[in-house]
Amino acid sequence: MKLIDIYSRYKKDIQYIESELERNIQSNHDVLNETSLHLLKAGGKRIRPVFVLLSGKFGNYHLENLKNVAAALELIHMATLVHDDVIDNAITRRGEQTVMAKWDNKIAMYTGDYIFAKALTVVTQLENPKIHQILSKSIVQMCIGEMEQIRDFFNTEQSVRNYLLRIRRKTALLIAISCQLGALAAEAPRNTVRTLYSFGYNVGMAFQITDDVLDLCGTEKQIGKPPGSDIKQGNITLPMIYALQEKDLKEPLLALINKIKQTEDQSDVNQFIQLIRSSGGIDKAEILANRYIHKATKQLDQLPDIKTKKHLHDIANFVLSRKY
Amino acid sequence: MKLIDIYSRYKKDIQYIESELERNIQSNHDVLNETSLHLLKAGGKRIRPVFVLLSGKFGNYHLENLKNVAAALELIHMATLVHDDVIDNAITRRGEQTVMAKWDNKIAMYTGDYIFAKALTVVTQLENPKIHQILSKSIVQMCIGEMEQIRDFFNTEQSVRNYLLRIRRKTALLIAISCQLGALAAEAPRNTVRTLYSFGYNVGMAFQITDDVLDLCGTEKQIGKPPGSDIKQGNITLPMIYALQEKDLKEPLLALINKIKQTEDQSDVNQFIQLIRSSGGIDKAEILANRYIHKATKQLDQLPDIKTKKHLHDIANFVLSRKY
Repeated sequence: MKLIDIYSRYKKDIQYIESELERNIQSNHDVLNETSLHLLKAGGKRIRPVFVLLSGKFGNYHLENLKNVAAALELIHMATLVHDDVIDNAITRRGEQTVMAKWDNKIAMYTGDYIFAKALTVVTQLENPKIHQILSKSIVQMCIGEMEQIRDFFNTEQSVRNYLLRIRRKTALLIAISCQLGALAAEAPRNTVRTLYSFGYNVGMAFQITDDVLDLCGTEKQIGKPPGSDIKQGNITLPMIYALQEKDLKEPLLALINKIKQTEDQSDVNQFIQLIRSSGGIDKAEILANRYIHKATKQLDQLPDIKTKKHLHDIANFVLSRKY
Repeated sequence: MKLIDIYSRYKKDIQYIESELERNIQSNHDVLNETSLHLLKAGGKRIRPVFVLLSGKFGNYHLENLKNVAAALELIHMATLVHDDVIDNAITRRGEQTVMAKWDNKIAMYTGDYIFAKALTVVTQLENPKIHQILSKSIVQMCIGEMEQIRDFFNTEQSVRNYLLRIRRKTALLIAISCQLGALAAEAPRNTVRTLYSFGYNVGMAFQITDDVLDLCGTEKQIGKPPGSDIKQGNITLPMIYALQEKDLKEPLLALINKIKQTEDQSDVNQFIQLIRSSGGIDKAEILANRYIHKATKQLDQLPDIKTKKHLHDIANFVLSRKY
């Protein structure tokens, strides 16, 4: 099932969140308006606000109560993307120039700060202090995750466990709390909130793993950026960790990584991608992603039988098979 | 009166806040621990937490209620400093290497993000939603102020009004809300809260103006960084704007600014500093700072006669005469 078909059932509400996002980032400062709008218009899957809305269906669904949670989470996500692109020297994202490339690093840093601050003004309109606490603690963890990523750049000795801990903080947490906070804001029963958190967490883990696979197996058109971006930045992802465990491949892979680290030569990157594709790393990573999605959908069994459950199921399966 | 003499009356409480700051920034991530602690240990005047405490004296003073406000404001201030140093390519601050210089830009960006996130976890422990709203709106304004500063780099045509609007956002606002939130957290009467906000705002304006004067008139030892840092970054401050209004000086100043912009040659910077010092710009800036401090102390007249009032008076006068 395509994402657009799932989303179409919530079209009006998603569009409302989109207009809220646009309203929220407005300022009377020209550059900030431009950079923020540029970012917003580049689109994205909006998986976090969608999870907020869908999780809200398991409680008392009131769009007015959920809109601020949904907008805040997407804004926080957007802010982290801008700062990520600075760290990664990323030129394109979602097929558009990044803020860092179109303007510069410094403007990107403050655009991130600004969007994040705007997210906070949205959050402060929420009355439940528990939501504030969950959010702020998660943001601390996300920062630690980002620093771990910097620390682990070009570290070819890292373990699968290390990788999983890192993507937990970097990605899975924010998706997990999207489900949790949506359910909380809709005053869903405590068990349901917990189950949805766990669903989101597992989908989030799978989401990052498939993201890392796509960077090695997707086309530029599909993923909106040149393939091999991860290794160019020094980001050692799951398929690479698995491939490095293969005796025949370890030496040539290490040699290529070393060359890429020094010259960023595209032919080395292409050769590296080919080697990883020929390894068992991709399959193994996909199997692990599959296992996370299986765990996620298992969680859904505990939820009441409303049609939204089917849609969460569909999104989880989309995450596994996605090509973008 | 020296700052240390004023502070000594609140020594125990200030030390408690200091230990809270240290406790709050701790993480199990090595680099973040090091960068944050490096920043904390470099010291600073801690004027924001001190204003929180002193303003709290005009209500029901409970250190336990005030500590989170005080710590959060100092952490937010610290986070902005790290990001500022990235923008300004600043090598030293408070006589110590900046995070950006000792580590790098990227680590500095995430250290700022991390300390800011830690500030938020402190804030979420506060129950008054009004405090959250005031804080988040102020942070948005601070980001806009920072972007305005980037926009105005090397803009020699800017007006005094432009400068004042910028430092209002960049500096005065956070000092103003330090007083406001301290009073609010201590449940001081509404009028008192408003008066203290206004006191803090005026002190904050004076504080930034004297900062900008010190960058031109202080020694490296006094200000903990090389003098002339502002013009090297392209930051056109109040004494410069005034000096540029002098007919005889405009041409040579513009020529020097142009040279500094291109080469950052220290002899040009020294010549520039000499020219500004010989102008009426320093005096005029000091007169304006004086006027803000006068306004600030005028506000104090409206407050009940407790001994803290005298101490606020003393701090305001310190800001005017400070050499660091």
